[in-house]
Amino acid sequence: MEGHDRRGIGGGARLTLSWRDVETARERIAGVAHRTPVFHSRQFDEVTGATVFFKAENLQRAGAFKFRGAYNKIRAELEQRSFSEVVAYSSGNHAQAVALVSKLLGVKATIVMPEDAPPAKLAATRGYGADVVLYDRYGGDREEIGEKLVRDRGALLVPPFDDPLIMAGAGTATAELLEEVPDLDFLVVPVSGGGLIAGSATAAKHLRPEITVYGVEPETADDTAQSLAKGERVTIPVPRTIADGLQVPCVGRLTFPIIQRTVERVLLVSDDEMIDTLAWTLERMKVLVEPSGVAGMAAVKHRKADFAGKKVGVIWSGGNLDPKRLATFLGKVAT
Amino acid sequence: MEGHDRRGIGGGARLTLSWRDVETARERIAGVAHRTPVFHSRQFDEVTGATVFFKAENLQRAGAFKFRGAYNKIRAELEQRSFSEVVAYSSGNHAQAVALVSKLLGVKATIVMPEDAPPAKLAATRGYGADVVLYDRYGGDREEIGEKLVRDRGALLVPPFDDPLIMAGAGTATAELLEEVPDLDFLVVPVSGGGLIAGSATAAKHLRPEITVYGVEPETADDTAQSLAKGERVTIPVPRTIADGLQVPCVGRLTFPIIQRTVERVLLVSDDEMIDTLAWTLERMKVLVEPSGVAGMAAVKHRKADFAGKKVGVIWSGGNLDPKRLATFLGKVAT
Repeated sequence: MEGHDRRGIGGGARLTLSWRDVETARERIAGVAHRTPVFHSRQFDEVTGATVFFKAENLQRAGAFKFRGAYNKIRAELEQRSFSEVVAYSSGNHAQAVALVSKLLGVKATIVMPEDAPPAKLAATRGYGADVVLYDRYGGDREEIGEKLVRDRGALLVPPFDDPLIMAGAGTATAELLEEVPDLDFLVVPVSGGGLIAGSATAAKHLRPEITVYGVEPETADDTAQSLAKGERVTIPVPRTIADGLQVPCVGRLTFPIIQRTVERVLLVSDDEMIDTLAWTLERMKVLVEPSGVAGMAAVKHRKADFAGKKVGVIWSGGNLDPKRLATFLGKVAT
Repeated sequence: MEGHDRRGIGGGARLTLSWRDVETARERIAGVAHRTPVFHSRQFDEVTGATVFFKAENLQRAGAFKFRGAYNKIRAELEQRSFSEVVAYSSGNHAQAVALVSKLLGVKATIVMPEDAPPAKLAATRGYGADVVLYDRYGGDREEIGEKLVRDRGALLVPPFDDPLIMAGAGTATAELLEEVPDLDFLVVPVSGGGLIAGSATAAKHLRPEITVYGVEPETADDTAQSLAKGERVTIPVPRTIADGLQVPCVGRLTFPIIQRTVERVLLVSDDEMIDTLAWTLERMKVLVEPSGVAGMAAVKHRKADFAGKKVGVIWSGGNLDPKRLATFLGKVAT
């Protein structure tokens, strides 16, 4: 992971994260990122006994919260030095975000993606004009490939999560959510490398110190839950789950201490619970949230007892899902 | 159709429709119906060469614009006389709307529905506490069944479209759209019995006299297009189309003269065009619109030349779609 740190320091970023970083990110992304709507469903409240608000980052540009961090990072680095190319490795949504941001800011993007990434995400990344380099998710080392591209081409590496500018950008969604619904008891956020939850919790704890922040992971991808239990970062084999955005084997070096400080605990959800919740949301709320994106909501739906009577904010983190995969998921739902 | 007219007159409603009716409907539904969001997609603008705004009535209560008319009708009639029961016949979305409105206003609802109505719509209607009576769409006469229930039980009949209060309620969506985007060149609206387009065009022509209003029908359900060509109402055999909300064999007696006066022409779309557009909207915009609801958008997507360079408002009229049917549709989309 040395590479990240070097780039982070090289780019002038600090290794901690504060509310001020989130505020600065908000200023940077204003008028470029969408201020996404907050959804509420009477039916979901009836199902859960809680009052739940959904921050719809599936409606963010490029279909996920990732746009916020990517824009904040690349824009901030361009304020420090001049470069004409960026490189990112990503399971999908970060790739699309970096590709779109690069197009908007006039730099070239090369994206290192797993060869089994959903076709829609590969196509969308290329559609934004990025070069895509494929690697084997279960064998290859994407960081090594990314680093090599950075060395060979002198490009800026845009890490998917382990970077204060990325985390701060991600946290802006929660800042917007708490502006609209200030009195939340809980904030529930999917966890992959931890960038979204680190930024979200930093914003939430500043704006609403009494809030309880829960992370959510697929039960096969519980590296952060294990890490919190053990008190140090645990690496697991690359997990297999339908939540392709949450398949990271180890929480970030920079995100983990923030999570330790701010996150109460990490709940686990099954693939079936995510599919059930995705189908419910589509049928009842008419909105498409991808499996990774719906993990937080699935935890609330399937662990009602923890949330009954409370006011809960949930981040829908993304909505990029291949229609063919969606059709397969819907075919599995019991009617 | 005698029944409608009798009830309409009995309820004190006039047989014409004016902007004032839409204004009154707005006051009646305020704080009860959702003010639905207006969506815009850079990608759709790139595809079409137009600038297109979507009024998301798929996010309306009970999943379709129908809630507006049903609430306006039942509430207005309750202001005139006391009754404890309502009856409606409907292919689906009107049924759910009447069922939900009845629940909110504390009256009992009996809904006459075709036996091949989508299971999700049957279940949702029953879920709102209504009694459902089934009939054969291709053989039975739903109006006769409805009339009989009205006679036997002294209930209020809530027609799906041919009623000024229903039309006025439907028109409130367009009033909201034009408040947000005042300078539309075109308004594109799906046509079934004509209640939505009659109300929409009445509102649009008042707020923006120079606007051009287009209706859209499935090519197998072109009764209104035929009626406009002939200058009188044409009845066709009950059409077969995936757009189950647009399967009405004849435009309304009251809606037709309004359509003649306000609608430029009716465009036709195929089932494949509606499926293509539905899948596009889900994948790119992360929003579920049902086949009937997406008809207007499909016309803009597949007849780009008519709209290039123009500012277009489209009504997404509903979003109620069974997950299994959606899976089937997505399986048909070419990738």
